Amino acid sequence: MKSGLKIFLWVTYAVLKITALSAQDDDVIMIRKLHDEALGNGSSYPWLKTLCTTYGGRIAGSDAYVGAANYTKTLLSGIPGVNSYLQPCEASYWYRGEKEQVYLLDGTGSRIPLNALSLGNSVCTPDGGITGEVIEVKSLDEVEKLGKDRVEGKIIFYNRAMDPTKIRTFNAYGGAVDQRVYGPSKAAEYGAIASLVRSMTTSADDFPHTGVTVYKDSIHRVPGVALSTNDADKLSKALKNGPVRVYIKTTCKTVGMRYAPTTIGEIKGSEFPNEIIVVGGHLDSWDVGQGAHDDGSGCIQSAEVLRLLTATGYKPKRTIRCVLFSNEENGLAGGRTYAKISNEKGEFHLAALESDAGGFSPRGFSFEADTSVFKGYYKQVSQWLPLLESYGLHFEMGGSGADISPLKSQKGLLIGLRPDSQRYFDFHHTANDTIENVNKRELELGAAAMASLVYLIDKYGIK
Amino acid sequence: MKSGLKIFLWVTYAVLKITALSAQDDDVIMIRKLHDEALGNGSSYPWLKTLCTTYGGRIAGSDAYVGAANYTKTLLSGIPGVNSYLQPCEASYWYRGEKEQVYLLDGTGSRIPLNALSLGNSVCTPDGGITGEVIEVKSLDEVEKLGKDRVEGKIIFYNRAMDPTKIRTFNAYGGAVDQRVYGPSKAAEYGAIASLVRSMTTSADDFPHTGVTVYKDSIHRVPGVALSTNDADKLSKALKNGPVRVYIKTTCKTVGMRYAPTTIGEIKGSEFPNEIIVVGGHLDSWDVGQGAHDDGSGCIQSAEVLRLLTATGYKPKRTIRCVLFSNEENGLAGGRTYAKISNEKGEFHLAALESDAGGFSPRGFSFEADTSVFKGYYKQVSQWLPLLESYGLHFEMGGSGADISPLKSQKGLLIGLRPDSQRYFDFHHTANDTIENVNKRELELGAAAMASLVYLIDKYGIK
Repeated sequence: MKSGLKIFLWVTYAVLKITALSAQDDDVIMIRKLHDEALGNGSSYPWLKTLCTTYGGRIAGSDAYVGAANYTKTLLSGIPGVNSYLQPCEASYWYRGEKEQVYLLDGTGSRIPLNALSLGNSVCTPDGGITGEVIEVKSLDEVEKLGKDRVEGKIIFYNRAMDPTKIRTFNAYGGAVDQRVYGPSKAAEYGAIASLVRSMTTSADDFPHTGVTVYKDSIHRVPGVALSTNDADKLSKALKNGPVRVYIKTTCKTVGMRYAPTTIGEIKGSEFPNEIIVVGGHLDSWDVGQGAHDDGSGCIQSAEVLRLLTATGYKPKRTIRCVLFSNEENGLAGGRTYAKISNEKGEFHLAALESDAGGFSPRGFSFEADTSVFKGYYKQVSQWLPLLESYGLHFEMGGSGADISPLKSQKGLLIGLRPDSQRYFDFHHTANDTIENVNKRELELGAAAMASLVYLIDKYGIK
Repeated sequence: MKSGLKIFLWVTYAVLKITALSAQDDDVIMIRKLHDEALGNGSSYPWLKTLCTTYGGRIAGSDAYVGAANYTKTLLSGIPGVNSYLQPCEASYWYRGEKEQVYLLDGTGSRIPLNALSLGNSVCTPDGGITGEVIEVKSLDEVEKLGKDRVEGKIIFYNRAMDPTKIRTFNAYGGAVDQRVYGPSKAAEYGAIASLVRSMTTSADDFPHTGVTVYKDSIHRVPGVALSTNDADKLSKALKNGPVRVYIKTTCKTVGMRYAPTTIGEIKGSEFPNEIIVVGGHLDSWDVGQGAHDDGSGCIQSAEVLRLLTATGYKPKRTIRCVLFSNEENGLAGGRTYAKISNEKGEFHLAALESDAGGFSPRGFSFEADTSVFKGYYKQVSQWLPLLESYGLHFEMGGSGADISPLKSQKGLLIGLRPDSQRYFDFHHTANDTIENVNKRELELGAAAMASLVYLIDKYGIK
């Protein structure tokens, strides 16, 4: 090789190397800045406190929900450079009614109250309540095996506990939640008059956990009710001594379609405005508690991502959109409507990041995408991992979030924030999901982690 | 190569490979078993609950401390194969006395109470209390710069907050705690009559955090008192409007040397009984609260390690010793005595693992050793990381624990459990460090992580 060419190549190499290094140094500095702002001057905790204490129990279609939508719209428009608006959406509004009455009738005439909550979307009992003999089962299959002869006229009690030996509690939840989602309909299929289900938690406590149940269209609907784990144990123990009857009275009902808008806040991209990066959570919660971890935390972290980028002086090349979806808990109307409108407009979501696993200490992100593009995307984002590892963050392949899942067909990258999962099901869908159970630093660290990843995606794109 | 030799080498290779694989499979199975037992059938939470509720506030030398030593001795001896005993130790017993009275005197005659706790080992005020003008400083250096003229006769108020932007709260603690440890003595050196210090926490609350202060022998001793962060802010705000006086009355005192034994439980090794692996925490706590995270959790996790190994049928080759050290908080008498006796006996500690960073979700381990041996040790243990990564555990170089640090001269491996640190300083050294603030699963996961590492060290040794 001629020495002139050699020198040219060497200089080119050195320039490229220095450029690459200094780009990485810039990233180190920017990610540090985002964390400094989130932890030293964060807005997420006071914002979440207001959302929880003023707009708690914001089931989609409720007044609290609409209040929360307006509050978050105003909050987002207060961030410099952010344009916020409500995306109209209709959701089926379900109303709990009066406090559930569930009693264990021990045969001596005494009524032992059980801590209970109607399952979301459940029908109610007749006015006089329902009394019936309880049959305990551990699975939907067991109902089928028992058959009509044994189930007809009875109350089916699903009592398979979440497996405490799963390291991630979401895996234990996934292994037990079929009882809540499909249990009432399966029981009704075999002639049961109602269905009780052990609450979805590994902890032993007195909080009943609600959550959606799904009825099959072809099957008669019977009431579905969750019992606290302590009371599920109590009922199971009573059943060991012979037949047990339970009285259930609930007054819940599906009221009908109501206005339940999705809140959107957007920073327009300076170079590639048509490449959209969504960061979001779902604004609705169950009607009990304050929806602090599920999913006030995810919403507020998403709003904080826009504030962090702005406060640190970053100018996004791509359009960054904070989307606070409606009706995740009992219908997914917000996510479906958002994707439908986006598809109609011919939009392209380069990436969507959802936080819907609680405001706990972040441990990383999980990534998914259409199989035709995933491998390349994951290879690329994996190169950024060294920038985030010192913050205790790790990457993995896996699910992202329910609200963003309808965007998968646009073939962008879908991402889920993965916080530590150990405490999530202590609070999930209970009256105990309140701001007092959110740790300020853990919430802030999640927001900073999300902002860091959004920054990298925005700066480098995904190819 | 002759084909006979070729075949021999191939067979040898295959056998070695299969042996290696099956050893690793055995490890995967064993580590899974340890986690199943800890999470599905764990003893750590009920044990910790008894320790906290029956022997709370167990400062070394107190009756509660001796009760805790006897309780843990009995608990350990209940684990099959464990021989437990108390190692005699004397510790300087410090007694808080009556509730501290600290008032901000606003000049109008009204007295605004401030939430305060005497620092551990502090002297008390005279019977009539101390009243003095407050000088706020941010560092020990600032006291030196102010000099005798400005400090004499005053109350020095150290108000440098823990840095919230540190990702690990222990780093923030390390950056602020000199004010508590050396502040009173530094203030006295320049003629101050007392010292107030902002509590060591990043949270804004009303809990004063105690903790040890260390007096220089040559300097007159003045009282040291911690204020809650909210009240430190209140005092600082008042000082912005002009001179402020504070009244302090405390009755704490160092009573003298008392019996404060270290609890030890041991499983004798079947092959290498002279190679000792310690797993431990410190049994003493501050006198306020229950010492749930600091360090009841670490003690109970250490006892649970022995139970987990036994319950899963593992027979240790080496001697596994659970050591619950005395007097970590205000003297380290337990750790020093243990190492002294061990050295006198000519013992060799192959490894020592301490859990003293709270019963939070474990994120990994940090390793240290004498520099002459560390590199090789760390290289070896790093090979085990793939076995633990699926449990969310990571390895790093760094400090281990105060109690085991005197063992460093034996040139074994010293290890610290590293739980998530975000919530630790919400509770540390306060009345709020109670069992209610420990999550059962997080505690159990820490014990399982510790047992897994102890198992690997025991099985393979460290060379």
